[in-house]
Amino acid sequence: MANSLKRIILGQPLATAAEKHERLGKITGLAVFSSDAVSSVAYGPEEVLLALVTAGTVALPLSIPIGIGISILVVIVASSYWQTIHAYHSGGGSYIVASDNLGTLPGLVAGAALLTDYVLTVSVSVASGVAAITSAFPPLFPWRVTIGVLSVAAIAIANLRGVRESGRLFAIPTYWFIGSVVLLILMGLFRVVTGTVQPLPTEEVKATHAVSLFLIMRAFSGGCATLTGTEAVSNGIPAFRPPEPRNAGIVMIWMAAILSSTSLGTTYLAHVYNVVPKETETVASILARAIFGENLLYYNIQFATMLILLVAANTSFADFPRLSSIMARDGFMPRQLANRGDKLVFSNGILILSSLSILLLIVFRGETHALIPLYAIGVFLSFTLSQAGMVRHWLKLKGEHPKPHHIILNGLGALTTGIVTIVIAVSKFALGAWIVVVLIPLMVLGLLRVRRHYEEVAQRLSLEGAGRPKIGKNPVVVLVAGIHKGVVEALEYAKSISPNVTALTVDLDPTQTTKLRLRWAEWEPDVPLVVLESPYRSILRPLLEYIDRMERQGEGRYLTVVLPEFIPSHWWEHFLHNQTALLVKAALLFRPGKVTVSIPYHL
Amino acid sequence: MANSLKRIILGQPLATAAEKHERLGKITGLAVFSSDAVSSVAYGPEEVLLALVTAGTVALPLSIPIGIGISILVVIVASSYWQTIHAYHSGGGSYIVASDNLGTLPGLVAGAALLTDYVLTVSVSVASGVAAITSAFPPLFPWRVTIGVLSVAAIAIANLRGVRESGRLFAIPTYWFIGSVVLLILMGLFRVVTGTVQPLPTEEVKATHAVSLFLIMRAFSGGCATLTGTEAVSNGIPAFRPPEPRNAGIVMIWMAAILSSTSLGTTYLAHVYNVVPKETETVASILARAIFGENLLYYNIQFATMLILLVAANTSFADFPRLSSIMARDGFMPRQLANRGDKLVFSNGILILSSLSILLLIVFRGETHALIPLYAIGVFLSFTLSQAGMVRHWLKLKGEHPKPHHIILNGLGALTTGIVTIVIAVSKFALGAWIVVVLIPLMVLGLLRVRRHYEEVAQRLSLEGAGRPKIGKNPVVVLVAGIHKGVVEALEYAKSISPNVTALTVDLDPTQTTKLRLRWAEWEPDVPLVVLESPYRSILRPLLEYIDRMERQGEGRYLTVVLPEFIPSHWWEHFLHNQTALLVKAALLFRPGKVTVSIPYHL
Repeated sequence: MANSLKRIILGQPLATAAEKHERLGKITGLAVFSSDAVSSVAYGPEEVLLALVTAGTVALPLSIPIGIGISILVVIVASSYWQTIHAYHSGGGSYIVASDNLGTLPGLVAGAALLTDYVLTVSVSVASGVAAITSAFPPLFPWRVTIGVLSVAAIAIANLRGVRESGRLFAIPTYWFIGSVVLLILMGLFRVVTGTVQPLPTEEVKATHAVSLFLIMRAFSGGCATLTGTEAVSNGIPAFRPPEPRNAGIVMIWMAAILSSTSLGTTYLAHVYNVVPKETETVASILARAIFGENLLYYNIQFATMLILLVAANTSFADFPRLSSIMARDGFMPRQLANRGDKLVFSNGILILSSLSILLLIVFRGETHALIPLYAIGVFLSFTLSQAGMVRHWLKLKGEHPKPHHIILNGLGALTTGIVTIVIAVSKFALGAWIVVVLIPLMVLGLLRVRRHYEEVAQRLSLEGAGRPKIGKNPVVVLVAGIHKGVVEALEYAKSISPNVTALTVDLDPTQTTKLRLRWAEWEPDVPLVVLESPYRSILRPLLEYIDRMERQGEGRYLTVVLPEFIPSHWWEHFLHNQTALLVKAALLFRPGKVTVSIPYHL
Repeated sequence: MANSLKRIILGQPLATAAEKHERLGKITGLAVFSSDAVSSVAYGPEEVLLALVTAGTVALPLSIPIGIGISILVVIVASSYWQTIHAYHSGGGSYIVASDNLGTLPGLVAGAALLTDYVLTVSVSVASGVAAITSAFPPLFPWRVTIGVLSVAAIAIANLRGVRESGRLFAIPTYWFIGSVVLLILMGLFRVVTGTVQPLPTEEVKATHAVSLFLIMRAFSGGCATLTGTEAVSNGIPAFRPPEPRNAGIVMIWMAAILSSTSLGTTYLAHVYNVVPKETETVASILARAIFGENLLYYNIQFATMLILLVAANTSFADFPRLSSIMARDGFMPRQLANRGDKLVFSNGILILSSLSILLLIVFRGETHALIPLYAIGVFLSFTLSQAGMVRHWLKLKGEHPKPHHIILNGLGALTTGIVTIVIAVSKFALGAWIVVVLIPLMVLGLLRVRRHYEEVAQRLSLEGAGRPKIGKNPVVVLVAGIHKGVVEALEYAKSISPNVTALTVDLDPTQTTKLRLRWAEWEPDVPLVVLESPYRSILRPLLEYIDRMERQGEGRYLTVVLPEFIPSHWWEHFLHNQTALLVKAALLFRPGKVTVSIPYHL
């Protein structure tokens, strides 16, 4: 029945041979790999304004220099990754680059950072996508957590069914969104140029903080959420049509251009239009309403925002299970994560990812703003380790490639992202970044512990220099409570596997025991029947004591305990039989050298 | 760990030999067996007033004739049971008397009625005991369900620990309560005689029903709750000192006298003092407050009421498990109910009783009045069947004992209680009696179904005319995923139990499988290794198909599947290993002729 349900939800299994590879051109490649990065425009600029407004509306113009700073950061990070693309043709995820060049520990830190990052990508993207919709349809606002949870569940089911990263499917929402945002910015700029801007009425927001360097750091850190997803292209190089590095590199440049221009454009127009961030409506929605008016164009951009954010969330459903499976194959995560399910997807990874991101959505009440402080820190930590790994990579290759600009560019990337990581950790520490600061070292410890376990097991199980165990003929005891067909079957089975069979019974009722002894002599005269006293009416205790005594006599390497067990035809009938077999099995499970065998008797 | 917790709560186990029998004299016998009946005074008269007050305060004086009717009923039932005592010296519970004389079906009806009755005795007594306390301390009123649930849990734990029905322990609350009630009545009557009664101010209650025969029947039915527990003495005859029937008979007469006089006295004084029933205070509490004033005597009677009601609830904790064990031995209930736990008590029965009565307390929000309509019907049904059984008993013995007054007295008892059963069922049907009317036939069906299951099993398992099964040498397959110490152990074990061993592996990764084949030839050249293809990466499916193919070839009666299984040293390490063994075991459990054996390898 559980199996039928699984088939209804997941569809028919796929054969291993059905795995196929689709190669992407630059146009579809941009759609597939940029949704995560480009969609960040929906929440990045808003985070800057939200931080600044705590110092009152007067602080909002600071968003312009901060926006310029973030655009410069995009250029630096993208250039740095552009080099990675040309060096790691097979896909240079941070875990691989850091492990290869810096060693296991930095690799694991990058891996842990990426795993938290993927979970947060799902939560933040879905929360922000839902916010785009609740901005357009305010009555849905109280249902935002429910809508978010259902969206994650829907994406998870689609992935468990084996949705392929189909380029065409992804191209629609990505280009739709890019087109809508570009239209918004162009129309806004046209208004500015023609002097037809109608700014929103000035709302005075009371300052709770003074304008300080710390506040500006905080606003900048919030804006850094814009950069999340920038590394996607460099992870996916093998998916491009040849020449892969060239195509991927061009897509990287396009993506950086779109990202920096749309984010800067949005920030500038939000300033021009006097946009003040609100709890129940996104900055992007306020701005679109101001520029387009409340018409079809407005609803179009909100809907496109929701769609691209769901596509962005979906990218984690490919990345998280893939990274988990690589780390599982390296022995740092449970082996189950390395197995493809019967739909050719890493089902366990998908289930873990969706559960964790749903949990985050619920705990943080589906608020993008509450989740952001946890988000960017992992992203920038993995940027830093990846770029630092690249510097090391060039140093190792120095003999062949004596080009110092490689080292300088990646060095600049590592230095910048390193500083940003620290800025984010410090300025957002109290707002939630501490969770990630505490979590990542714990995750690294856990990963190391898992690896140690597998190594210990492998060592214990190794046949290196091992002799063949002497097993010989093992004694068998059959636990009986009476004599009937089931018991006779069990005894016959026991006799078929060993010449040394003893029957054991626990004396709970002297009358029954006497009856059993008489019938035993008639039916099984060649199997000795041992009757155990049980002053406390326990079945387990005398049995375990007897088994311990046998062990001390050291008759064989294994003692096999045979249990006649009824298999009733209806589930409720289980309650009508003592579950002694189950108790005996559980008690013997942790005693070495004991083997329990149930001989099923089907009623 | 679970075991340690059990020991802390339940204490050390008791040996079977520790069971001892304490014989009771008349004074302690009255205390032990009358708590249930006598404590009914706390709620019986109140039920009459609660039914009457729906026709307004003018209807309340009708409580006097109804009270007299109930006292007459007590005398009839007690006389009828007095005869049972002299006929069934070994304890004549309704189940036994009805089964012996009327047949299985009436016996089961009586048994089902008694079981529901015992559950309700606990719920009603505890609810009423809690009401005595919340009447005296109104701030506790909102906590009544919690207090009730905790009280049941405390009684259950005491019984699981093996509290014996110690006469001395029970004598204190019973005589304390009887003394307090007698004092209340005497003081009330003294006031009446001396003309110093200060009746409570008249409260006008608006009538919602007219005074009708149906209303009077309903009031009478409510008052019948007074009779609950009357049968206790006749069940417990063997506990008395010899001559048992004589002593038990005298105690029965004393009990009936106390019960009818206290119930009639309370009813009369409630009338004289103008007591009108309330939701938050019991009639007994209002009356005691009126007669004693709010002083130590008042608090004393409330506390004594609570105590005797807890003792009354406790009697069910001996009766329910005892009746269940008798019915289990007769094959009508699961056998587990017939086993004494390690504290010499029927632990399963105690757990079921306390769970059900706690459930009732919660569902009916701890309100005595809501529970009463379910209560008396089971009691009177078992009275009727028991008395009718006695009539049949005398008819069978006619030759030896030609005394017609025996037949007449029990016949009168059966007829009266039979009529009362119908009156209760009809008048309280809509108030909750329907639950019991529906439940008892369902329970009887269930009891018969259980018995049929045991009979079928016994027939199936019977060795009557059975031949000895031919088992021969059975094939063994060992499921392997690689080759290491655990696998080698499992193979050696397999070779020790059969000359026909095959190793099975599922090909999930061609590289791994090739490696396994090479090492196999080195380590286990004499065991054939069968590699199963798995196009869908499932382990179970190809394995089960292979086993089915083997079965069709019919190589032996049993196929033994040996599974090498790791036993990790920490619980969390289970998550680091695929739980394939578990899945294979579950899949083979319901296939006849398959035996699975885990060879534990302790890490």
